[in-house]
Parts: sequence; C-alpha cells; structure tokens
Amino acid sequence: MDTRTGLPVVGMVGGGQLARMTHQAAISLGQSLRILAAAPDDGAALVAADVHIGDHADLDALRAFAKGCDVVTFDHEHVPSGHIEALAADGVTVAPSAAALRYAQDKRAMRERLGELGVPIPRWAPGASMRAFGDRHGWPVVAKAVRGGYDGRGVWIVERDEPLPDVETIVEERVPLRRELSALVARSPFGQVAAYPVVETVQRDGICVEVLAPAPGLNADRAVEAQQLAIRLATELGVVGLLAVELFETAEGLLVNELAMRPHNSGHWSIEGARTSQFEQHLRAVLDYPMGDTGLTAPAVAMANVLGGEPGGISIDERLHHLFASDPGVKVHFYGKQVRPGRKIGHVTALGEDMTEVRERARRAARWLQEGR
Amino acid sequence: MDTRTGLPVVGMVGGGQLARMTHQAAISLGQSLRILAAAPDDGAALVAADVHIGDHADLDALRAFAKGCDVVTFDHEHVPSGHIEALAADGVTVAPSAAALRYAQDKRAMRERLGELGVPIPRWAPGASMRAFGDRHGWPVVAKAVRGGYDGRGVWIVERDEPLPDVETIVEERVPLRRELSALVARSPFGQVAAYPVVETVQRDGICVEVLAPAPGLNADRAVEAQQLAIRLATELGVVGLLAVELFETAEGLLVNELAMRPHNSGHWSIEGARTSQFEQHLRAVLDYPMGDTGLTAPAVAMANVLGGEPGGISIDERLHHLFASDPGVKVHFYGKQVRPGRKIGHVTALGEDMTEVRERARRAARWLQEGR
Repeated sequence: MDTRTGLPVVGMVGGGQLARMTHQAAISLGQSLRILAAAPDDGAALVAADVHIGDHADLDALRAFAKGCDVVTFDHEHVPSGHIEALAADGVTVAPSAAALRYAQDKRAMRERLGELGVPIPRWAPGASMRAFGDRHGWPVVAKAVRGGYDGRGVWIVERDEPLPDVETIVEERVPLRRELSALVARSPFGQVAAYPVVETVQRDGICVEVLAPAPGLNADRAVEAQQLAIRLATELGVVGLLAVELFETAEGLLVNELAMRPHNSGHWSIEGARTSQFEQHLRAVLDYPMGDTGLTAPAVAMANVLGGEPGGISIDERLHHLFASDPGVKVHFYGKQVRPGRKIGHVTALGEDMTEVRERARRAARWLQEGR
Repeated sequence: MDTRTGLPVVGMVGGGQLARMTHQAAISLGQSLRILAAAPDDGAALVAADVHIGDHADLDALRAFAKGCDVVTFDHEHVPSGHIEALAADGVTVAPSAAALRYAQDKRAMRERLGELGVPIPRWAPGASMRAFGDRHGWPVVAKAVRGGYDGRGVWIVERDEPLPDVETIVEERVPLRRELSALVARSPFGQVAAYPVVETVQRDGICVEVLAPAPGLNADRAVEAQQLAIRLATELGVVGLLAVELFETAEGLLVNELAMRPHNSGHWSIEGARTSQFEQHLRAVLDYPMGDTGLTAPAVAMANVLGGEPGGISIDERLHHLFASDPGVKVHFYGKQVRPGRKIGHVTALGEDMTEVRERARRAARWLQEGR
C-alpha cells in the first residue's frame, strides 16, 4: 500500500507501451504504476514517477522491485518461469502466476494443454516430427518457435525440403482462414471474468495493423462462442489479469491460434472504444477489484497501429498538426519510442456509426503519421 | 523539444489534480508533462517523470523550470503577473499570457473589462462604495476578494451594517438565479476556438459538487448564446488554452460570474464524456495544434466531486471495491491527495441515456467514496 494515498501499489515488469498505457489508467485509480524498465528511455519510464531500472531476467532485480508491491504483473512474457515461482515463494502476489503464464510463454505446452481441454486448435506436432506431419497434412507447414516469438518473428512457412530454424519449434497445418479474431477477457482472483466484444484483427506481414471492434459481420452465436471459449480458458488455466485469445475464423468454425496474458494490441481500441479500457481492467483484475463495464462507446471502433517510417522528411510533430487539422475526432497514442522502420511507435483510434468510415479514418491517420503524406 | 521523441515539452506550473490529469492526456500525445510542484507529494508529482520542486512565486524557480519548455502553462492562477511578463521577456512562450490571465486573477479588472465589452454581468462596485451600492441595489450584497478566492473562499454575503473583510473586494448584487452554467472553450494562438457543450454546475456551500453535460433542458438558442459569449471572450481577451466562463442563468438571461483560464472542474466530465478531454484540448491549444472534437460520447453525462470525509471508518480502497461491485460503469478519478474533510480528493463520472439516472449514479458513487456507506 502507498501510505501517502491508502491505495495499493501495482508493479509491472517491463517498460514498454503496455506499461506506459497501464500507468495512464493507474493514475485515475489514484495509483502510480511501479515499473521495472530495462532503460531510462523506455516508453513507460519517460512518463512514470516510480521507475526501477533493471533486467527482467535478473532475480535479484525482480526481488528488489517486488518489495512493497501489493501485486506484480507483466508488460511482456519474457520473465523466466523459475523467477516468477521464486517471487511467489517469497510471498509476493504475482498475476498471472507462473503456472498460468506458462501457456503464453511456451507454445508447445499451450498446444498440449488446449488439446487436453478439447479446445479447437490447428493440427500440430513437435518440430522433430515435421516431415511425417507435412507428408500427412500437406506442405508447406507453419513452424513456430516454442518461445519468444512476436509480431511475425518466430514464425516461418516451411516447404518439404527446407530445414527448420535452429530453435525449438512446433509445426502446424496452414489453416485456410477467413480472417483472424481476438477474444479479450479479464479474470480476477475471485473468479469474476469480464469479456470484451470480439474483434477482428487485420495482419500484414505477420504484424497486426488494424483492429475492428466489434468484428464486422460476426454471427452472434459465433461471437458468444468465442467469448465463452476465452472465459473457459481464463478459468481453466487460472489466469489472473487479461487474457487475449487470438483466433482463426475458418469455414468450419473457430481455432485458437495464440494466447497472451497481459494488455494486448487487439485491445488498444478499448481506451476510447469501451467504457473500461483494457489497461484499467487489467489493474482491476490483478487487484481483485470487481470488473468494469466492457460495453462499446460507439457502434464502430477502428484502431490502426502506427509503424515507424523511414527517417527524415516531415517531423512527427508536423505530421500530428496536419492529422489533427484533417480529422479532429481521431485519437492518437504515441509510445515515446525512437522511430525505426516497421516498429510500432503508436496507434490511432476512430469511432463512429459506420465501420467502413471509421476504418478508413484510422487507416489514413496511421499512414499519415507514419509516412508524412 | 524532447530530443528522445521529437515532440514538444509542455511545462505546467502547479502540481495539483489539473496537472495530474493533464499529464495523463500528455502521455497519449507522446509527451511527458513537465511539472513545477510545490512538494514531492503533490498529486501530479506522484505520477509524473519530469517534476521540478519549487515555489510558483519565485521567479528564479520559474526561470529554471521554463528552460527547455516549448510552452509554459498553469494549473492555477497564483503566479504573479510580473513573473509571467518576465518569463515572456526572456523569450519563453507562456499560455495564457499575463495580459489575458489578469482577467482570471483580478476580479475587479475582469468586471471592468467585461463591462467595456458590453458583456452581461451582475451590477457591481468597488468594495469602498459598498454602502451606496447596497442602498441603491438592495441588501445583502455579495462581496468578493479581488484576488485569490476559490471553492467558496473569498466570497461573503454582507448585510448593511456588517464590515467588509480586510482584503481588497468588489461588491455585487445578489442575482436571483435559476441555476449556474459553464461554457468551456479552448483557443489556440492561431485563433481557432473549440466550444464544449454548455453544462450545468451544481454548487453546495460555494463548492461545485456536480456537473451535468449537457445542461438539462437548456434552450438551444441560449446554449448557442453561451458558447458564442465564451468564444467572443476567449478572442477579445486573447486567451490561449482553456477558458471556462461560469454563468448565472436568470429569468432575464445569462450573466457572467467568473472566468478561469485552465482546465476547470466544470470540464472534468469531458475525460469520458467528450471525444476530446479538456486536458488534451488544453495541450493542443497551448501547442497551437488544431483543436479536437468536443462532441459528447453519450446523451447524458454526470460528474460528481468526491470530497474528503471524516478520517477513520472504511478505507478508501475498500470503498472502491464496493463501488465497483455496485456500478461497473462508473468511472473514478482519484487525485493522490491526503484526505481532509471537505477537500476535493477525486471525482466520478457516469454516462448513459438518461440524465436523471446518470446523475443519481454519480451522486451515489461520490457519497460512497466519501463516507464509506
């Protein structure tokens, strides 16, 4: 507890944009997020008061950081499982627990567990069985690094005669998908689960570029099925905090692609688009507060990621001027990052009555900020 | 400019809740508000990264603070006019300017200027002429400290035979008012002015306790009249940033009560209730960015201030649990302040279709947080 305010202290390991936006939400709840950042110029470290600098893979740094936190949570999945268990053994409340987080850290463990639970997933096999798997289910296959992949990294399309990369992998069938969806829920230690409207995520080169809330044209039964699946997974896996279930929609139904246990890119739209943002919801969940209203604030919400463009040209500040002049309603979120080509440096959200229109506005705004045109 | 992000640096003098909530808005714009706080446990200093501790009445402290800021603005009106002029003479961009801010700092200057502009105001006179004024326009009169009053302080009802307090005052007629309104606008150096929907402010013991957006039952012509009046005042007075025009609604029409040139309690509803919050709008204005959309996000928005209750009883954290359980949709904002009876320690906002319902929800939430019932 913060003795100055009488309110709890949440510590978040990792100082990226998720911690940055969680800090924004913490301020409303009377708190100030405690952040373990890798460097003083991490996006969250630039804006928060209670910043520790340290390595998330260093148990001593984690222990020093956890002291005085009511709960410790994560901006990414890279903290070693053993370290999380050690913190818990010290008496630190950690959310999600190592046992739950494992299924977001290890794709093989995730596939095995989801299979046991009878949850629909793509056909898969350990990387070592690739040849037999591909010959049976078709080539090429999708190889995935068991640990550490994100934003298209750690995923490869592999033909019959190509070698696997030199990391531990699983291989999966290439699913003939219509589109990708995401079902976001938050679960508290008490066991309350709140589900957000199911969204469509649009990928380009393996990177999420747009999110549409609610998923356009999604059949109501299928939306409920996706929400119930996410609620069931959060409960069965014992998740505390947010769980994003990334889904493939196919002609036959839904398949679970990936799990994430933290605020997620597919939920950024909720800052303006839902009555309770995913960042506030994550805080409420890890603190065992009752969950907030997940309802939409407008019939159509579109989020587009802003990727770093080539250096030079019109400055980001000038671009912002032009964007605000052209669209007074678009909402901008910058992450305080140095611009590098292809890096997510922010996102924009547009809200309105019509998805086609808000999607076009969000897309145009993101391009404008990215390329200065 | 912040060389790490390529984005401008805004400095705000004062570390209270207005700076705290402006910092929240600055984060989305890629910035980190630089704050001159009086003490390290000021509400804004608890949550921001770039905090200077110093006295807003000390010119050297102001000069050191202003160095490296693209623009300096204010969380309160207590910085001496001469200091603001000195900063401007140093080449610092200050918004609003000393010349504009004077009309929010000095009630006599404000009344004189508004009279010259032909703006409707209550009948008034310098405190020294009280006897003649009261005999002519009726007793009791309302005496107001020319400088430094807020939240009911610096305002007195004075009968014929009572003495005036020992500060410089003006006296005004007691206006037979129906209710109080507030017209909030933001003006940029370019001259663009954006007007928010006119709201009703509900006072108790001189303190604003509730704000209803839009003002229920307000005639559309009168709403436009109030907005146009605020736009005209922002322009005529050369305001840069927010201007809140507090109004009396009487049987005969509108009268201007007070002016404030900063984010204002009557605009807190805009965080969730408008597409662009007053805090983001203030930043956009002082940076000469184009203004954001001021439209409502719901047909009815009610904000209630949370005042500090008596110490003891149920902790604030427990109260928050109970509140969230009873109303998942209410939005809470705590200011990081030590609780003192009657002090504004936070606010709550409820949104919905029906003003009677959202007002009841906001009122109940504020009482719950305040009194632990």
